[in-house]
Amino acid sequence: MTDGFEFRVEQKEGDARRAAWATPHGVVATPAFVAVGTSAAVKSMTPGDLSTVGQQAVFANTYHLALRPGADLVAQMGGLHRFMAWDKPIFTDSGGYQVFSLGASIEQNVGKIGVFPGDSPPHRGPGANGDRSMVRIDEDGVSFRSHLDGSAERLTPERSIALQRQLGADCILAFDECTSPLHDEAYTREAAERTHRWARRSLDAFHSSSPPNGLPQALYGIVQGGWFEGLRMESADAIAAMEFDGMAIGGSLGRTKADMRRVLEITMPALPEALPRHLLGIGEVPDIFAAVARGVDTFDCVAPTRNARNAGLLMRSLDGEALPKFRSNLRNARFARDERPVDATCPCTLCTNHTRAYVRHLFKAEPLLACRLGTLHNLTFMNRMMSDVRAALAEGRFEQLAIEWLGQREAEILLQPAPRIDASIP
Amino acid sequence: MTDGFEFRVEQKEGDARRAAWATPHGVVATPAFVAVGTSAAVKSMTPGDLSTVGQQAVFANTYHLALRPGADLVAQMGGLHRFMAWDKPIFTDSGGYQVFSLGASIEQNVGKIGVFPGDSPPHRGPGANGDRSMVRIDEDGVSFRSHLDGSAERLTPERSIALQRQLGADCILAFDECTSPLHDEAYTREAAERTHRWARRSLDAFHSSSPPNGLPQALYGIVQGGWFEGLRMESADAIAAMEFDGMAIGGSLGRTKADMRRVLEITMPALPEALPRHLLGIGEVPDIFAAVARGVDTFDCVAPTRNARNAGLLMRSLDGEALPKFRSNLRNARFARDERPVDATCPCTLCTNHTRAYVRHLFKAEPLLACRLGTLHNLTFMNRMMSDVRAALAEGRFEQLAIEWLGQREAEILLQPAPRIDASIP
Repeated sequence: MTDGFEFRVEQKEGDARRAAWATPHGVVATPAFVAVGTSAAVKSMTPGDLSTVGQQAVFANTYHLALRPGADLVAQMGGLHRFMAWDKPIFTDSGGYQVFSLGASIEQNVGKIGVFPGDSPPHRGPGANGDRSMVRIDEDGVSFRSHLDGSAERLTPERSIALQRQLGADCILAFDECTSPLHDEAYTREAAERTHRWARRSLDAFHSSSPPNGLPQALYGIVQGGWFEGLRMESADAIAAMEFDGMAIGGSLGRTKADMRRVLEITMPALPEALPRHLLGIGEVPDIFAAVARGVDTFDCVAPTRNARNAGLLMRSLDGEALPKFRSNLRNARFARDERPVDATCPCTLCTNHTRAYVRHLFKAEPLLACRLGTLHNLTFMNRMMSDVRAALAEGRFEQLAIEWLGQREAEILLQPAPRIDASIP
Repeated sequence: MTDGFEFRVEQKEGDARRAAWATPHGVVATPAFVAVGTSAAVKSMTPGDLSTVGQQAVFANTYHLALRPGADLVAQMGGLHRFMAWDKPIFTDSGGYQVFSLGASIEQNVGKIGVFPGDSPPHRGPGANGDRSMVRIDEDGVSFRSHLDGSAERLTPERSIALQRQLGADCILAFDECTSPLHDEAYTREAAERTHRWARRSLDAFHSSSPPNGLPQALYGIVQGGWFEGLRMESADAIAAMEFDGMAIGGSLGRTKADMRRVLEITMPALPEALPRHLLGIGEVPDIFAAVARGVDTFDCVAPTRNARNAGLLMRSLDGEALPKFRSNLRNARFARDERPVDATCPCTLCTNHTRAYVRHLFKAEPLLACRLGTLHNLTFMNRMMSDVRAALAEGRFEQLAIEWLGQREAEILLQPAPRIDASIP
């Protein structure tokens, strides 16, 4: 473990654990939700707002920040913490996921189409579109086009670590290649094995560089392998064997929620008990309970903040009605004349000051305030839920809490071992 | 004066005055800037934010609220104060200005083009576009099309007052017809005289209706007459002779800033000293000094909040450099690596927490937070300036303050009598 960091497991209940993740910018009590602040800001939130909602840490995107405003600029401004005026822990990703997004979106014929210069023979995997791909992967790294201006960009493990050194987050990630659920086992193996070689290079680059401002950084390795059980086991073993400070689970977690649980079940036992574990890109309520039960410590996901901006407000139930997705669309016409608070149990600015009727009106007529109030609410919800999870773990009643939140039947399904993944399902 | 309201002039310096405008929702210390919250929200600001920036009152638009969410809905929700959770004074306009905007924008071949149903012979004035106009004015009122869905709408003095009763603002406005600087004297006279008849009908509708929730409302008359000196005098006399609770100055104030000052000089002396005076739609710094000097008490304007959302941040000077428009564009490349606060003299959230480099980055990459921080800043600026104006008036040094803000030469021009308006200039 890099000096300046300490991970202390304080309680366990089954594989679930409550822990303290001490970083140079303070301690994250886990399990914890890490809010996504892509461009060095959680959309519509000031640092003061983030403190108000109980946010312990934020997650910024290296790809976006490297393109705008540039990692060198952030470094010159004293690093991400000073740049965004947030003195608590920050995570950055490696850029690998964004490269996957560009590639996968093209493969699936959605999103932007770029023209890649020069000859590139068709190949399998992300960006397998010959000259028309925005992404090209080789052993050394990835070439891609900026989503902002189409300029040619390049990421390698060494470049990703150098960028993340400049950004100066507390927790940084090794450079990896994400695969999509549409990739076959052969390509997913090729990508996972490349990711292991990139993990080694990321570690070497990390060890041969210095932390910015003298403040140490922790490097997480990323387990890949898609939804192929054997590959996930191999990848978990490979990453666990390297001297990372933390373990992240990335890439495709399968085609169903059950696949995700199964992937976690075969991955987590292979990871070192003494290191923090981060599950990338997961943030729906039932998934968090399922992942905590399998030993995940931290989560990041755009869903709570993105849904907030789309009037999807998180709550356990609405007027006694169960909400399977734990959210209600406040644009719904039935709220037009509803004088009640959105969620009478919530202490946030939206729920303590405003009626459903007003919130619905704002989502139709004044999006700036609606987005802010919605984000304040959803992050309050996430942080209160994680606080409840930690309190339950402290008292050995996590399973009971899961039943209270999910209901007996759903909780049993989520907490019991998941079925083997059927690779014959297309 | 309607019971429940009291206007007390506390000091005068020349024609400028410091006063207290007591309403059922508290006292507005004047001169004061009233922030515009078109759809029952100042864009990106919670009521708590508005209190933080020292906002004393807000100004909402009857036209917008009548279309969405509907004045009956707001009434059912307990009126604007409860609907928007703002317990301080609120102004609403009559809808006349928005109708003018629709008409003038068509006459000048900008903005939306609507198709008006039925036969309408071409006529002079707003919406003088035959069948293609979005606006048609007759003696009884105005027909227009909704900017939201093109539906046919109708406003009359009686309807405007009824809507404003439902909305329940403290200070409401008589229904008027605005003219543009492009209208000739004959049409401007016709519109002004119609406005006087509508003022009488607005008053009658006001007196024959009851305040919502038992809380009284004050009705302002609106002086029109464009930039024609004789018409302004006639209009001021006509409106002053009616039993309004306050006086508003509306419509075209001329083609130059000097025209505006001249219009105020010939209008203000005709208005009752004992009533509050509101200048509609003016909010630039030099204009506020010029108008206060001529006896204006309150102002509303979208400029400070709209500019804030466009990176135009208000300040007296930047690094010693004079800013004739009292604002700087924070998108400017020279701020990219500037670690200083935007305005070191400002106590707002933006200036006390963030660097120019970060604010510039937000305006490029994260508009939601940028708009909010910019609005917090610009409203803090406006309210601090108005507070300085009141403090100067209390000590008989308003002219000195104007010189400090505007410089000797500019202050002299703005405070001295303006030249007669040359009606021969096209």
